[in-house]
Amino acid sequence: MKVLVIGAHGKVAQLLIPKLVAAGHTVIGGVHNTDQNAAIEKLGATPIIFDLLGPVEKMASAMQSVDAIVFSAGAGGRGYDQTILIDLDGAVKSMEAAKMAGVHRYVMVSSGASNHRETWGNAIRPYMAAKFYADRELKRSALDYTIIRPGMLTDDPETGLYQTPTADQRSIARGDVAEFINAVIADPATIHRAFDIVNGPHNLAEILH
Amino acid sequence: MKVLVIGAHGKVAQLLIPKLVAAGHTVIGGVHNTDQNAAIEKLGATPIIFDLLGPVEKMASAMQSVDAIVFSAGAGGRGYDQTILIDLDGAVKSMEAAKMAGVHRYVMVSSGASNHRETWGNAIRPYMAAKFYADRELKRSALDYTIIRPGMLTDDPETGLYQTPTADQRSIARGDVAEFINAVIADPATIHRAFDIVNGPHNLAEILH
Repeated sequence: MKVLVIGAHGKVAQLLIPKLVAAGHTVIGGVHNTDQNAAIEKLGATPIIFDLLGPVEKMASAMQSVDAIVFSAGAGGRGYDQTILIDLDGAVKSMEAAKMAGVHRYVMVSSGASNHRETWGNAIRPYMAAKFYADRELKRSALDYTIIRPGMLTDDPETGLYQTPTADQRSIARGDVAEFINAVIADPATIHRAFDIVNGPHNLAEILH
Repeated sequence: MKVLVIGAHGKVAQLLIPKLVAAGHTVIGGVHNTDQNAAIEKLGATPIIFDLLGPVEKMASAMQSVDAIVFSAGAGGRGYDQTILIDLDGAVKSMEAAKMAGVHRYVMVSSGASNHRETWGNAIRPYMAAKFYADRELKRSALDYTIIRPGMLTDDPETGLYQTPTADQRSIARGDVAEFINAVIADPATIHRAFDIVNGPHNLAEILH
């Protein structure tokens, strides 16, 4: 498959791209800055400027002949105006672009517990709200979506083992999130599903089915 | 009718409340600060603390026996985190609360051109996006909504005359917005409709029907 990773320079995306390449996919890495091109090429992907602040039509033109999209972008610490414009409006525009370009498969890297408003901590509340409404728009779209809501991301070594979050276990290694996305892309049975994942005792097949 | 105005201390709301009272409605003025109580009482309404950052259940308890809700709140200059949490998530929570409390009628004071993403100016873009997604949620709700999208608000004298925006005319007096809301509340034919209004040559009946 030809897979477009939006936000290709992010930490999870940089772990994901080599996995997608190893699985035989052709990967396009959407970045917002040509300074990131070299890093994306090094991972085995073709970099492309993908501006989440730009028009839907331009996004759609970057999606020609793409089979699947992974949204792994985020405003990060660039201010709450960017949280609205990237994590929410940028994400929704990329969904509209997918529709425009005829791409059906869309995998959203969301955030753990963003679907439970009552759990949002004060500091992270605006970000959680942006992810919440973006995911809601995705569910209402006609796209073949999968939503992945990982717990607190760590740089711990990849384990290949998962569970749904518990009171005692709320974190997950970025490598395990990447591997989960890689598995989801290859598995049409994950379409129209959402997964809450942290590290745990179960292997991929157990958690996916 | 018993009308709850959320954001009762806002400029449009303060012009609206006396009109609603004069039309025979009982008005509850939702404010986020008891310092605003005296001003609300002076306008003829009963003030009530209505915290858009708080839980849906608490909002619903403030809606008991209410017949219609006017959402006229906004984060204003309080930061883009508040834009997400008040203009978008707060608004949506008030819709959920309305459903919970059995209130059907919901009038949203939105913003001109918020439904046309391509026209959003840079400075106002995060605000427009928040209003855009709040209105989308409202349209998808089961509420008897009306959405009002006024142009640029002015403190000019009330004219009683309206039109849809044109290249030459993009502003509207706050008093005319207030009178428009007052008319919408009294007119079930406006349910499930959205109105883009600025000042112009037409009277209320012409613009409403």
